[in-house]
Amino acid sequence: MTGSGSVAVICGGVGAARLLRGLARHVEPDQLIAIANVGDDMELHGLHISPDLDTIVYTVAEAVSAERGWGLEGESWQAMTMLGRYGGEDWFSLGDRDLGTHLYRTQRLREGASLADVTGAIARSWGIEFGLLPVTDDRLRTMVTTVDHGEITFQEYFVGHQHSVPVTSVRFDGADAARPAPGVLTALADAERIIVAPSNPVVSIDPVLAVPGVRDALRSRRDDVVAVSPIIGGKALKGPADRLLVELGREASATGVAEWYTDEVGTLVIDTVDAARAEAIASVGVRPVVAPTIMSEPGVLDQLCELLLSV
Amino acid sequence: MTGSGSVAVICGGVGAARLLRGLARHVEPDQLIAIANVGDDMELHGLHISPDLDTIVYTVAEAVSAERGWGLEGESWQAMTMLGRYGGEDWFSLGDRDLGTHLYRTQRLREGASLADVTGAIARSWGIEFGLLPVTDDRLRTMVTTVDHGEITFQEYFVGHQHSVPVTSVRFDGADAARPAPGVLTALADAERIIVAPSNPVVSIDPVLAVPGVRDALRSRRDDVVAVSPIIGGKALKGPADRLLVELGREASATGVAEWYTDEVGTLVIDTVDAARAEAIASVGVRPVVAPTIMSEPGVLDQLCELLLSV
Repeated sequence: MTGSGSVAVICGGVGAARLLRGLARHVEPDQLIAIANVGDDMELHGLHISPDLDTIVYTVAEAVSAERGWGLEGESWQAMTMLGRYGGEDWFSLGDRDLGTHLYRTQRLREGASLADVTGAIARSWGIEFGLLPVTDDRLRTMVTTVDHGEITFQEYFVGHQHSVPVTSVRFDGADAARPAPGVLTALADAERIIVAPSNPVVSIDPVLAVPGVRDALRSRRDDVVAVSPIIGGKALKGPADRLLVELGREASATGVAEWYTDEVGTLVIDTVDAARAEAIASVGVRPVVAPTIMSEPGVLDQLCELLLSV
Repeated sequence: MTGSGSVAVICGGVGAARLLRGLARHVEPDQLIAIANVGDDMELHGLHISPDLDTIVYTVAEAVSAERGWGLEGESWQAMTMLGRYGGEDWFSLGDRDLGTHLYRTQRLREGASLADVTGAIARSWGIEFGLLPVTDDRLRTMVTTVDHGEITFQEYFVGHQHSVPVTSVRFDGADAARPAPGVLTALADAERIIVAPSNPVVSIDPVLAVPGVRDALRSRRDDVVAVSPIIGGKALKGPADRLLVELGREASATGVAEWYTDEVGTLVIDTVDAARAEAIASVGVRPVVAPTIMSEPGVLDQLCELLLSV
């Protein structure tokens, strides 16, 4: 691509948020649109919680806790302490500052605003100038079938069981009836480049693709779609992507990621440690590009962004 | 009464809470039951907030902020600060600790628990041993018709407009269909003494009486019902009781209170500064008892409790 066109990014949480922090330095804000997963969303204590959307906002705004890697810096936990006193459900930690976001979102949604509108308002108030859209305003929930606990919600799996329990299948409740949020399909049709962020393919990217029209949009633009492998040297940097790929019959490797995405992604950026897998990836019909991808290492994020915009 | 029998207390918020703190020292916990107003309850940001129930719990547990007179000591306001950042509805201050209570209540209610059950659990976790019941588990909302803003909820009137706007009428939305919470009518039938706390007659006590069966229960026990006037020297110690009485065609005085309660209350305790009104009160058919009633003054609370249990 020329670098002058618009860019759409398919996003999960932490990995996508870090990538977006870089892309925002390389793409004009009105040419950048992030389309984010809402399969992690939950209703808890009456509040509507959108973990991936919030992780993106807090991270790009550089307000995320460096220490924990999630949630806000300067956070306090008075509400959770009180909830614990009552023996309430306190397995999902909600900081006091973070609660302000959930209170605002919940109130606006109850007043009839769309999730996209509320997300836009939250993002702008944190100084985020590029577009951030939930993939859908409708209810979509990632449900995980586990060997030991039956079908549970994504957050029960990810936080409640710390993603340490074996999984047999994943489905996206509500996806069939969900409509892409206004602007999503247009952004995917118009983008010169579509980037799939280094998020979990199974439980972060797949729920985005499960919204009717989104997967087809990527397939019809396959040559312009570039993904970054979240698996490096056979391991996920964070979270259960490696184990989930294996549990769902794939390989925990950059090759397994290429196989997962083969119909939607034309180019896969794999880490230098996986250079030897380039041939195998090419053999499944995905163009491999080898580059440093560990975004926390000095200089890597900007190089990776330049690469994603130029390959 | 003998002092050995059970006591039921009809309660609003702050005044009732202070009285209960004293009564808990004079009545065995299994003989004391507080029946509290829920007309102030509200749904805000998706949370179920029960201000009078919480004021009672926090006050009796001696956890209320002495400085503010409401809410919890050691409170912080991080969630509200964040809500303000978004331009969210922040007219009703919710402290971070206090939010823990609302999160717990909302979650339990959504799981199908009754307000009475949740209230009992909250009260016990604060070490409160006497019975605390919302007058009803059903939805009941005090609605205030104002000259300038039409009909608004109680909290919009009380907090949003700081009860400084003229009122033409008050009604209790949902009261007709509300059922007394389990135990309420039994407590009123069995109590040797029924006390009406020094709460606002118009907007704190009347919504309790508006629940079908409650007013009749007091009327049938009128000789055993003792109220404490919340109007002292023509003024409410706190809040708009004096103005509301006038706006609804009564006198802002202990006599006005006696007239308000004449069908339900046999005995009215009035402050020593109002001794001259005793005759007028007797002339409306209510027995006046003159005593110090300013509960914040040394020794007064215990004397008042002894009086309420013995007159």
